[in-house]
Amino acid sequence: MTTTETSPDINTVNIEAVAGLAAKIQESPEVASTTWKAAVTWEQGFRSTASIRDFAPIGSDEPAGLGGTDTAPNPVEQLLAALGNCLAVGYAANATAAGVTINDLRIEVEGDLDLHTFLGLNPGGNAGFQGIRAKVIIDADAPAETIEELHRLVTGTSPVGHTLARAVPIQVDLAERTISEVTA
Amino acid sequence: MTTTETSPDINTVNIEAVAGLAAKIQESPEVASTTWKAAVTWEQGFRSTASIRDFAPIGSDEPAGLGGTDTAPNPVEQLLAALGNCLAVGYAANATAAGVTINDLRIEVEGDLDLHTFLGLNPGGNAGFQGIRAKVIIDADAPAETIEELHRLVTGTSPVGHTLARAVPIQVDLAERTISEVTA
Repeated sequence: MTTTETSPDINTVNIEAVAGLAAKIQESPEVASTTWKAAVTWEQGFRSTASIRDFAPIGSDEPAGLGGTDTAPNPVEQLLAALGNCLAVGYAANATAAGVTINDLRIEVEGDLDLHTFLGLNPGGNAGFQGIRAKVIIDADAPAETIEELHRLVTGTSPVGHTLARAVPIQVDLAERTISEVTA
Repeated sequence: MTTTETSPDINTVNIEAVAGLAAKIQESPEVASTTWKAAVTWEQGFRSTASIRDFAPIGSDEPAGLGGTDTAPNPVEQLLAALGNCLAVGYAANATAAGVTINDLRIEVEGDLDLHTFLGLNPGGNAGFQGIRAKVIIDADAPAETIEELHRLVTGTSPVGHTLARAVPIQVDLAERTISEVTA
């Protein structure tokens, strides 16, 4: 993002913190290397909670039709929410850096998923989203071309957007030491 | 998943609902085509909330060092949580289908992300996770080889896992009608 025309008050974004981090990273590039974490604890059925830093655990469940008790959004909905939240941060950051005040911003996200693979009916198939669409509804005090440039910047720098759009190496390891060995 | 040796009480998973859905899909494959949604509303700064179905909106923010007010997990942490929750559902489903009781299950997820691209310091670069690792710590009443087979099934059928491991077509559109045209 460009950091000209900044103001500490626009969109209540602390753009000085962002600019300060960017300056620090230009001096010490290793500062840009970050690791993020979440720890999930299974409760019962399809219910689990995710703990992130010191925040209160956030619940997860599945709809009844999928065998859950429908007490919370399910994991694929959470993933769509993460994309929408990430785009919102990107808009707020880039709009502020460009001196653009956002009046209202809403992002609707949806994705298509075929349940065959998850249900074991298509071994080797794709259990994930086949496609994800987001619609950005923004009311901001700026000409259309400025909004379009913001949009280009946001979609070109979105951490969650890029994670989804790229094939990310995922390693899932089993910590075998905790398995209870049962002899019949 | 195999549905032999099921019991309605194992892991309190409603495996009949899952098996019923699978049977329905085998009869009418189009039932497997699902669309999931989330709607995000920007609040102020880097704070937003995600609304999913009728659940209470869930907050999102960024740490202070990134310019946020640190009131909630950030989008990339939410994405890691979604993966952990998804793997938990997969374990619960497949263990139940195999007649395996889970005593305890915890999944630790972490991912590495370089901030250069998000901060505009590496145009055209990858703003997303370069790699994601999950560690599954399970205590279940089953021999190690059964757990390993469950693990193979879970990782091979995880909707969020597959979404992250594959390059998903992502389309982000700007609803231009809501832009306030400002003439200087």
